Amino acid sequence: MNYSKAYTSLKREALMQAVQMRMSEKRFKHVLGVEETAVALAERFDASPEKASIAALTHDYAKERSDEEFQLAIERGDYSNKSELLKYGNAIWHGVVGADFVARELEITDEEILTAIRLHTTGAAEMNLLDKIIYVADYIEPGRNFPGVEDARVIAFSDLDQAVAFETKHTLAHLIESETPVYPKTIETYNRWVAGIE
Amino acid sequence: MNYSKAYTSLKREALMQAVQMRMSEKRFKHVLGVEETAVALAERFDASPEKASIAALTHDYAKERSDEEFQLAIERGDYSNKSELLKYGNAIWHGVVGADFVARELEITDEEILTAIRLHTTGAAEMNLLDKIIYVADYIEPGRNFPGVEDARVIAFSDLDQAVAFETKHTLAHLIESETPVYPKTIETYNRWVAGIE
Repeated sequence: MNYSKAYTSLKREALMQAVQMRMSEKRFKHVLGVEETAVALAERFDASPEKASIAALTHDYAKERSDEEFQLAIERGDYSNKSELLKYGNAIWHGVVGADFVARELEITDEEILTAIRLHTTGAAEMNLLDKIIYVADYIEPGRNFPGVEDARVIAFSDLDQAVAFETKHTLAHLIESETPVYPKTIETYNRWVAGIE
Repeated sequence: MNYSKAYTSLKREALMQAVQMRMSEKRFKHVLGVEETAVALAERFDASPEKASIAALTHDYAKERSDEEFQLAIERGDYSNKSELLKYGNAIWHGVVGADFVARELEITDEEILTAIRLHTTGAAEMNLLDKIIYVADYIEPGRNFPGVEDARVIAFSDLDQAVAFETKHTLAHLIESETPVYPKTIETYNRWVAGIE
């Protein structure tokens, strides 16, 4: 894919390289799987394949930073309810806070792309098309292998909202089964997309 | 049990009658089961059996009021985030709002008793001994019959905090399985008592 330069001054290959430098080979392979899936979903649902590519390539950009680096970024940054956010760990920070690393270090300023990165782990009650594409692509990319992933892939290419619901329900059930903390925004996503509260 | 008159001017039998008037026979039987269990837990863990009795007898006092009556009470009452509260239904209202019906109509003013009623469905991150007793007694009373209730009963009389965790985890898993809305306070309870976030 040739980028238009509207969202990043880098070419796709250079962006890939900047991302690859920051993560393990295994995670980079996951990122490429998410990109492939996100571009396919963008084509399927008439979103911008270029924005889908950029958001997918950068969605886990900050995932291998240390807890200390995230904590410092939260303390210095502009986040509502910092003391609540600090209670969570990398699983939450790499999206919510990671988007700001992408903005600062990769000079990506497009708010749609940054929001899709910010929401990719928790989802949100309000999600636009790009947000849904990145959230779902992260769940169904070809490297994922868990009971139900084949169903999720079929649902995703047929009805993206239903795929958001499927992913949210199963992710939340897994968090509870494993007694993992649940970030409050995840429940907002669940109440909107699974339980249907408006 | 003879009441001291410290928390209600009614004798236990008169309070029972006031409660019975407001509900089906089936629900009243549940209430008596919760009372028996709550008093036993109070004796086991050195709480006040009298407060446990009063809170248990009144915990579902408002459960058979109409949605309209609850909505009116929320609109007229002193609740934080009314528009959020209004999205939920009887399952949440009968505790959170029901405590105020108990206060007004049964003239019970003891804040510990009212808080235990208020929290009996959702729990809370902060719960005192009486709160835990009513929360757990509601789950394990002799009329309850679901897979795991026998385990919950054994845990309850051995370690009340562990019983709070058990109940919260299983209740939440059931809500998600059935795609029922989850009140945000329930996640605060889960994060504190199950996932161990402080």
